[in-house]
Amino acid sequence: MSEEKKQDSPRIAGCSFSIYPMSDNFVDLILSSIDKADTSKVWMKTDEVSTIVRGRIPHIFDVTQAIFLEASRSGKHVVYSSTFSVGCPGDTEGHVFMAEDDVTMNSSLIDEIDQDASAKFALYPMGGGNYMEPIYEQIQAMKSHNVEVELTHYETKLFGKAQDIFRGLQSVLQAMEDAGSPHTVMTVTVSANSPSKRS
Amino acid sequence: MSEEKKQDSPRIAGCSFSIYPMSDNFVDLILSSIDKADTSKVWMKTDEVSTIVRGRIPHIFDVTQAIFLEASRSGKHVVYSSTFSVGCPGDTEGHVFMAEDDVTMNSSLIDEIDQDASAKFALYPMGGGNYMEPIYEQIQAMKSHNVEVELTHYETKLFGKAQDIFRGLQSVLQAMEDAGSPHTVMTVTVSANSPSKRS
Repeated sequence: MSEEKKQDSPRIAGCSFSIYPMSDNFVDLILSSIDKADTSKVWMKTDEVSTIVRGRIPHIFDVTQAIFLEASRSGKHVVYSSTFSVGCPGDTEGHVFMAEDDVTMNSSLIDEIDQDASAKFALYPMGGGNYMEPIYEQIQAMKSHNVEVELTHYETKLFGKAQDIFRGLQSVLQAMEDAGSPHTVMTVTVSANSPSKRS
Repeated sequence: MSEEKKQDSPRIAGCSFSIYPMSDNFVDLILSSIDKADTSKVWMKTDEVSTIVRGRIPHIFDVTQAIFLEASRSGKHVVYSSTFSVGCPGDTEGHVFMAEDDVTMNSSLIDEIDQDASAKFALYPMGGGNYMEPIYEQIQAMKSHNVEVELTHYETKLFGKAQDIFRGLQSVLQAMEDAGSPHTVMTVTVSANSPSKRS
């Protein structure tokens, strides 16, 4: 019964995300990557600085990861930067997309790309006093996703396959929702093909 | 007397920041920009994903803004991305730099560059229940810095001279410190020379 309830009433999630291809050809790389991704299950809007994607948690991860991996396939150094948010007061647009099911549209694209990545993430549970405890819990939880976890200032470093990193990050946001966090923010940076990556 | 007290006991601030030049020449652009900036009054460490800068609030803005503006001078599309933090539990390294005065080292470099920018920022006051009120206050305060302010999902958009935008953002972080916020996080994205900028 409780599982049914979760299925029926998830809150709309979203992110403000960008990909940065370190290439003279960055416009084509961004546009062609967006073109290759199936974005039919999310609300999406690009402005002068970033792109807002809204919908169910699985789809915002699926779509933005697919765009990033497609751009990374070029072999260029590409960085993915995203602020995820659930429960932000005043959050309105795109609710019609909550009627979509959870079947992700870009799994085959994502699965066919073999990509190592270095990443950082930070979790910000808003509005509560004991916010450090869920942060430490979720940093621990990342280790169960075949991802190497390293502490640093302000953020936590992650190393591994891009797909494992994104799977772990999606689990973090979902776990915060399942725990009833009123407003969760998570910032994520994922770097592919960097000349300063670990060998 | 209260001003003297503030001078004597500021807390160490810091950021995890990156610049992303959308250019084949990104490595040289990043390294030469860092080389041109005077970083003598901050603690600084680069890892696989970003660079951590720690010290007094004026210096972390001064140094990271100078590196960004120097890279933007190339005319290439360059993005600055930073997570600022003050009061993060467990924060340790770089405290020796708190002995520096507040005289910024890169003012002349910053002032000689004329650069329009589009930006987004978000403020996260951690650990308190009434966190939305200071956010709305600081969004209002940005308007006093000759910066155009526009609301969107998850973040607030800013348009203007890069220097005005950074001055406004520094004031936001300082205002949160002056108000006694126990732990403040602020994320910032600043975009220069974008093909999708406003005309």
